[in-house]
Amino acid sequence: MTGTDAPQITFWYEFASTYSYLAAERIEALAEAANVQVRWRPFMLGPIFAAQGLNSSPFNIYPAKGKHMWRDMDRWAAKLGLPRVVRPEPFPQNALLAARVATGLPDEARPAFSRAVYRAEFADGRAISDKSTIEAILRAMGRDPAADLAVAASEPVKERLKAVTEEARHAGVFGAPTFICEDGEMFWGNDRLEDALAWAHHRGL
Amino acid sequence: MTGTDAPQITFWYEFASTYSYLAAERIEALAEAANVQVRWRPFMLGPIFAAQGLNSSPFNIYPAKGKHMWRDMDRWAAKLGLPRVVRPEPFPQNALLAARVATGLPDEARPAFSRAVYRAEFADGRAISDKSTIEAILRAMGRDPAADLAVAASEPVKERLKAVTEEARHAGVFGAPTFICEDGEMFWGNDRLEDALAWAHHRGL
Repeated sequence: MTGTDAPQITFWYEFASTYSYLAAERIEALAEAANVQVRWRPFMLGPIFAAQGLNSSPFNIYPAKGKHMWRDMDRWAAKLGLPRVVRPEPFPQNALLAARVATGLPDEARPAFSRAVYRAEFADGRAISDKSTIEAILRAMGRDPAADLAVAASEPVKERLKAVTEEARHAGVFGAPTFICEDGEMFWGNDRLEDALAWAHHRGL
Repeated sequence: MTGTDAPQITFWYEFASTYSYLAAERIEALAEAANVQVRWRPFMLGPIFAAQGLNSSPFNIYPAKGKHMWRDMDRWAAKLGLPRVVRPEPFPQNALLAARVATGLPDEARPAFSRAVYRAEFADGRAISDKSTIEAILRAMGRDPAADLAVAASEPVKERLKAVTEEARHAGVFGAPTFICEDGEMFWGNDRLEDALAWAHHRGL
């Protein structure tokens, strides 16, 4: 168990983001080994991209970059022992429903829910914007899907997701995943997770 | 020494690119340890960016991304024991002269020249578009700057750099650094160097 006086990092992730999926798969074991606590913070990348003048994923806007990303995902999945990566249609998926549900869940349920959403999306190729996909995930967790969806659709949760997204933008988040240490040090990308955990401890790599 | 029957990777780099600098500093020791031969291939990122609709570095077009990159460079430089990173003015630098000189040099002189250009640019903040900067580097290498600059300005070298840049674009290169294995497997980014070296040997990570 990670001690309650352990340093903390905030894990900012977006459900449509491929590299957030990899980070979600990796972060718990690595954080536990590093004795770092993780705050899971789903947010919406769309408004942040839009503020940068991007109307879609950079992986769609720049096809050569997108091609490399999908191949890189294949390699990472093989390396991590994950199922073969499936490109969901459309890509990126509309992640609003998943993000609202994750926001409304109790903190302790958020990691397992989030990982299940990513698996549904990138291993099974299911539409995460479909209520039935989210319901099945909640049910498999032993939760009450109708209750969780009602919370997700409530004004306070909608407002909280907007506020959290604005907090991310204000902190300088421009992509996902992003890791932010307690001193504000920011690391972008699944491949910076180890650096972020090292920084959380001794403010260096 | 790396054996002549060792697997090979091609190291595609652009002199204005910050992460290409880090790769240039790291690649020789890592490649030797992995028994992989490296072909150093400077190319021009400008035409490749332009073909993607980018009229400058993404680090300038997207300021939040640029801010993270410079901070990330600071952290990497500290980790690698490199001098403090200096942001050259303007950024990105015009790298045409350096790329032409590097293209015209004999293969065995290219790595040391390239590393010296990056140090001048990102450690000393010197303008690599200035002939005097390039001359000083060549002189310190014990070479004849006038002769090397004459070769760099010759039509065959100009044409070769154009052809090599077109070859990069055709291979799917969209940024720098990029590493390509003999089987065509492509890895983008300094942080994929270890993956590329592993792939060169056993076609997996």
